[in-house]
Amino acid sequence: MDKVADVRVLYADTDQMGVVNNGVYLRWFEIGRAEWIRRRGRTYKDIEKTGFMMPVVEAHLKYREPARYDDLIEVETMTDELRAASVKFKYQLKRAGDGALLCEGWTQHACLNSDGKIVRMPEPLINLLRP
Amino acid sequence: MDKVADVRVLYADTDQMGVVNNGVYLRWFEIGRAEWIRRRGRTYKDIEKTGFMMPVVEAHLKYREPARYDDLIEVETMTDELRAASVKFKYQLKRAGDGALLCEGWTQHACLNSDGKIVRMPEPLINLLRP
Amino acid sequence: MDKVADVRVLYADTDQMGVVNNGVYLRWFEIGRAEWIRRRGRTYKDIEKTGFMMPVVEAHLKYREPARYDDLIEVETMTDELRAASVKFKYQLKRAGDGALLCEGWTQHACLNSDGKIVRMPEPLINLLRP
Amino acid sequence: MDKVADVRVLYADTDQMGVVNNGVYLRWFEIGRAEWIRRRGRTYKDIEKTGFMMPVVEAHLKYREPARYDDLIEVETMTDELRAASVKFKYQLKRAGDGALLCEGWTQHACLNSDGKIVRMPEPLINLLRP
Repeated sequence: MDKVADVRVLYADTDQMGVVNNGVYLRWFEIGRAEWIRRRGRTYKDIEKTGFMMPVVEAHLKYREPARYDDLIEVETMTDELRAASVKFKYQLKRAGDGALLCEGWTQHACLNSDGKIVRMPEPLINLLRP
Repeated sequence: MDKVADVRVLYADTDQMGVVNNGVYLRWFEIGRAEWIRRRGRTYKDIEKTGFMMPVVEAHLKYREPARYDDLIEVETMTDELRAASVKFKYQLKRAGDGALLCEGWTQHACLNSDGKIVRMPEPLINLLRP
Repeated sequence: MDKVADVRVLYADTDQMGVVNNGVYLRWFEIGRAEWIRRRGRTYKDIEKTGFMMPVVEAHLKYREPARYDDLIEVETMTDELRAASVKFKYQLKRAGDGALLCEGWTQHACLNSDGKIVRMPEPLINLLRP
Repeated sequence: MDKVADVRVLYADTDQMGVVNNGVYLRWFEIGRAEWIRRRGRTYKDIEKTGFMMPVVEAHLKYREPARYDDLIEVETMTDELRAASVKFKYQLKRAGDGALLCEGWTQHACLNSDGKIVRMPEPLINLLRP
């Protein structure tokens, strides 16, 4: 997996357990796939401009160790299971410094046209998302 | 001011200070104005369907006492300073039970048409928002 | 599964696809388990007061149909796979009115003591969480 | 004002108006003051370790132009009105590229000890926060 971004834990990301709230990680997954695509020379914004949307249709998160306020988090991302109309992004979030694995998971995405119908991805999009 | 809603503090709303994070209150302000409008027999969704949007252009928040996990919060709301193309919503958030004032503030809204231009509110909208 | 709560979709919950952002559903899952516990006569806050915490250690979400602004969402919740030191909460989110299934998923929780160590749940907690 | 951070607008930050939701900006204000302090060689985390907290007691936001998905936002921050037990942080958020002013505002902070009482800031903290 490629490291694609660093994110800093905000106070607003923590909860009263003193750790990052479970809901925040899906935000970091979004950063992971956005920056993975950017490293390939395109942006998700570009994809939408060509008339396609790739919403999350399924997500899985395994929380290994808590992230804490002001931690720097390394976001690693890769694609997998590329199909005609769907793709999976996988993520690993590690604490910078000791590299401890904090959370891993994946999101499954369908390809929709502007009417919201599931459609086959055009060739350039498939090439962009190839693992 | 009219009490228009009760909201329950979630774990996700708290931060490691053990209190509700300052950013959450703008969410509760949104609940306040949405429910104030609903009590007048319309919804903000209806307003958007008629081709107008009323985004927040300015906001002010004064935090009086901390809200805590699982508190039940009473949201009180009223309108004020109704102009041709803008209106202010005012809010008071109180803890149910002892009625302690936790936060008060306001949001200023402009009336935009579907092109994003500031426009005069139509008569029915003005009547809806009248204090 | 028991319906334990209704939640109203906020403007802040939507994204530019015009639907609820995928990250919001974990918030609704929290509402589901909090209200499921409340219906059993206790609160999650009570559990923490007895010196135990039950953080999310794994989560799964399957997005079926988009939720939209101002929709009223019915949150159904149940427990499952109750073990000595863990429990699973399952959720179904349905649109009020037509009952369309919007999202289903689960969260796995470990029981921690105040030092953050995984421990067996005390008898009253096991009884509270029994499916 | 010093530019202290760049933040990328996430999909999760937008709402169905196609722009960044008003609540997100308080998150960016937090990034502003955290990075302003870091540039002075300390962190807000350090401040809390010395037994002081500086919660937001008042906030003001003026939304000038909408921020949009994938925009890069420059966060500028400075301190002002440094008193014995309080300080104000001011913020300007600009779109990278054309430098358009998107939002400006401030947050007022009180200095609390670990019991939550308002107290005078110790000398090193005053020096750290000096405009």
